[in-house]
Amino acid sequence: MSEITACYQLFGKPGSFEKKAEGIALGLTIGSWTDLPMLEQQQLKKHKGTVVSIKEFVDESYQITPEVIKAEVKISYPSANFTSDIPAILATVFGKLSLDGKVKLLDLEFGKKLGSNFPGPKFGIEGIRTILNVHERPLVMSIFKGVIGRDIDYLVAQLREQALGGVDLVKDDEILFENQHTPFEQRITRGRKVLQQVYEETGHKTLYAINLTGRTSELRGKAKRASEIGADALLFNVHTYGLDVLQELAEDKEIQLPIMAHPAFSGAFTSSSFYGLSNPLLLGKLTRYLGADLSLFPSPYGSVALEKDVALAIAEELTKESTFKRTFPVPSAGIHPGLVPLLVQDYGIDCVINAGGGVHGHPSGGAAGGRAFRQAIDAVLEGKELSEVVKEQNELREALKLWGSDK
Amino acid sequence: MSEITACYQLFGKPGSFEKKAEGIALGLTIGSWTDLPMLEQQQLKKHKGTVVSIKEFVDESYQITPEVIKAEVKISYPSANFTSDIPAILATVFGKLSLDGKVKLLDLEFGKKLGSNFPGPKFGIEGIRTILNVHERPLVMSIFKGVIGRDIDYLVAQLREQALGGVDLVKDDEILFENQHTPFEQRITRGRKVLQQVYEETGHKTLYAINLTGRTSELRGKAKRASEIGADALLFNVHTYGLDVLQELAEDKEIQLPIMAHPAFSGAFTSSSFYGLSNPLLLGKLTRYLGADLSLFPSPYGSVALEKDVALAIAEELTKESTFKRTFPVPSAGIHPGLVPLLVQDYGIDCVINAGGGVHGHPSGGAAGGRAFRQAIDAVLEGKELSEVVKEQNELREALKLWGSDK
Ligand SMILES: [Mg+2]
Ligand SMILES: [Mg+2]
Repeated sequence: MSEITACYQLFGKPGSFEKKAEGIALGLTIGSWTDLPMLEQQQLKKHKGTVVSIKEFVDESYQITPEVIKAEVKISYPSANFTSDIPAILATVFGKLSLDGKVKLLDLEFGKKLGSNFPGPKFGIEGIRTILNVHERPLVMSIFKGVIGRDIDYLVAQLREQALGGVDLVKDDEILFENQHTPFEQRITRGRKVLQQVYEETGHKTLYAINLTGRTSELRGKAKRASEIGADALLFNVHTYGLDVLQELAEDKEIQLPIMAHPAFSGAFTSSSFYGLSNPLLLGKLTRYLGADLSLFPSPYGSVALEKDVALAIAEELTKESTFKRTFPVPSAGIHPGLVPLLVQDYGIDCVINAGGGVHGHPSGGAAGGRAFRQAIDAVLEGKELSEVVKEQNELREALKLWGSDK
Repeated sequence: MSEITACYQLFGKPGSFEKKAEGIALGLTIGSWTDLPMLEQQQLKKHKGTVVSIKEFVDESYQITPEVIKAEVKISYPSANFTSDIPAILATVFGKLSLDGKVKLLDLEFGKKLGSNFPGPKFGIEGIRTILNVHERPLVMSIFKGVIGRDIDYLVAQLREQALGGVDLVKDDEILFENQHTPFEQRITRGRKVLQQVYEETGHKTLYAINLTGRTSELRGKAKRASEIGADALLFNVHTYGLDVLQELAEDKEIQLPIMAHPAFSGAFTSSSFYGLSNPLLLGKLTRYLGADLSLFPSPYGSVALEKDVALAIAEELTKESTFKRTFPVPSAGIHPGLVPLLVQDYGIDCVINAGGGVHGHPSGGAAGGRAFRQAIDAVLEGKELSEVVKEQNELREALKLWGSDK
């Protein structure tokens, strides 16, 4: 029997969780059990939710009060009860329950058959590395800065500057929508042209992730159009649309572009310690299963920050052994070249080092900012301290002088 | 200039909010201002976010510590920066910001032109009253109970029982998806037949809201099919899909069915006092603007409960003066006939009294449960105490004996 197992964080009195968990397992499936005639029990058995495990945290550090402790409870729901789409799964395991006091959905374990319904990434880490022909180092990404209200020449000049610095990816601002100054199709065609020029000048290839926006039912058509006119990748604000919308983009075989999932709005349902979804589930597991090739999440280093263990747990979900391709972890915000040794230590080479201010804020400009990152990466991969190479590497020296290093 | 004004709840040191608010207003629009040349300031002025107001709560009851107080901050974003769809608006006003510590989005004020892009309800309170030909009393709704794993005859028998009790609406269980026992189309056609029989027998009309589920891109087609084969209304788990999906259903002129918005999963982003969205914004204003004809939300009376002022604020958003039709408030969970006087006092007659256990749990069965509600409503509208009528009204007497009354 295929099923999904949800892991919840609950709070309550020690010893109270078994009853609570049984109530959830029944309430979210067949409603009642003990008062059913034997024949009906037999008939409904395969639809009944099951309490799999209950773990009470008696350690003081998890208590709200000695009377109210934390527990992690696992409940299985038979897949006979729902269709294999995420809206049905979320409504089942966390529909009404999301409204029922301090309950947080920490994880979902998909039975093998159920899990195989999801697409996973089309490209994944290996696919994106193949497009770029970069296999042995972390990728570098930078972000447009201050492009709202600016014209297409301004945007294209900024794109050129970033590409000249040797970054592998440039992403649109996630709050740049269809607009008269820099229309979607113009951004793609003009962007492609300038990136081609840079490639011819330098031999370096940079991909531009265009922000896929608009009404839900128009997205797939726009993505196909983007593909036709030469886009490299799609940026997508998954959480202002819905997880199933990401999945439908990923499943569409006519959209042959890597999808970069942006975490905008996700904080609305991950930030609380008591409610909503865990970050490793939302920005890690589900983002990968549903088909994003890259997943941005707040790094533990900036002002908009996640705790380090949470950020690492997201990356783990994106890259661990599975039937799906691996999704590139993109820890974002507060990243500067001095953090590269720490980033490689934490995430290994299979991550995207993503910087906005850390590229554009470089004293010698955006291209220098990109170069400083590449120099830092080269040093780390050669097993050197950044301080060992700053004499020859001007851009990195300037960056470290401005932002410091992590050591 | 058209715009949207977001009201946020922030926490910080007294006197710190002006700088914080300016940072948000710039960070979520043009990025920087004071360091721009005069000419660029002129060019970008119409894209710049503006701090509208800052209200610090110095009263102790709002403090986390004397050093950390609550503030409500209003910031306006020019509509030149975004397209008029909800995903663009949410990404702008609460995209990155949702990830930035203790920030809660309390309200959105839409400029007149921007607001007029939304559809609002197709039917609204008046439209649904016209369909039912019931104008002078609250409506009564009941919910299927324990239908997962049951066959179509079981479901239809339960529907008949509910309709015989005189309820105006019956809704599908929100966790009943497409399944072999009770397929979507069979539920509609068999349901229609039995409700027609009840109408012929009793002259009472009951509408059945069918759960619209499946993949996002299939929903509109399924809704049209539902309409064609005689569905009365759609139940929709808005928050497991996305707000824009609701809007696209509401805008589709070929779908001429009232939409009942279910709050499943919404607790994931409304339950925290510090993060996410306010209930009056999500289940009130946005649910109405985007086109739901009925909005379910947790009543303040049950075990899954909202505070009373929050529940009333949702209802106020659904029904207050506006260019849009009014959406039926449906306070749900924990409702029994004894609460009818309180419900009418709190919500007036323009609400739907919605009960699951309060109908099915009636000692004389589901039909008696519905009758008890209708009897309670009649009494209240005649200005009588429930205790005055129980002598003649057997079903109400039994209900009050079991569940008590609110007085
Ligand atoms: Mg941005
Ligand atoms: Mg239910």
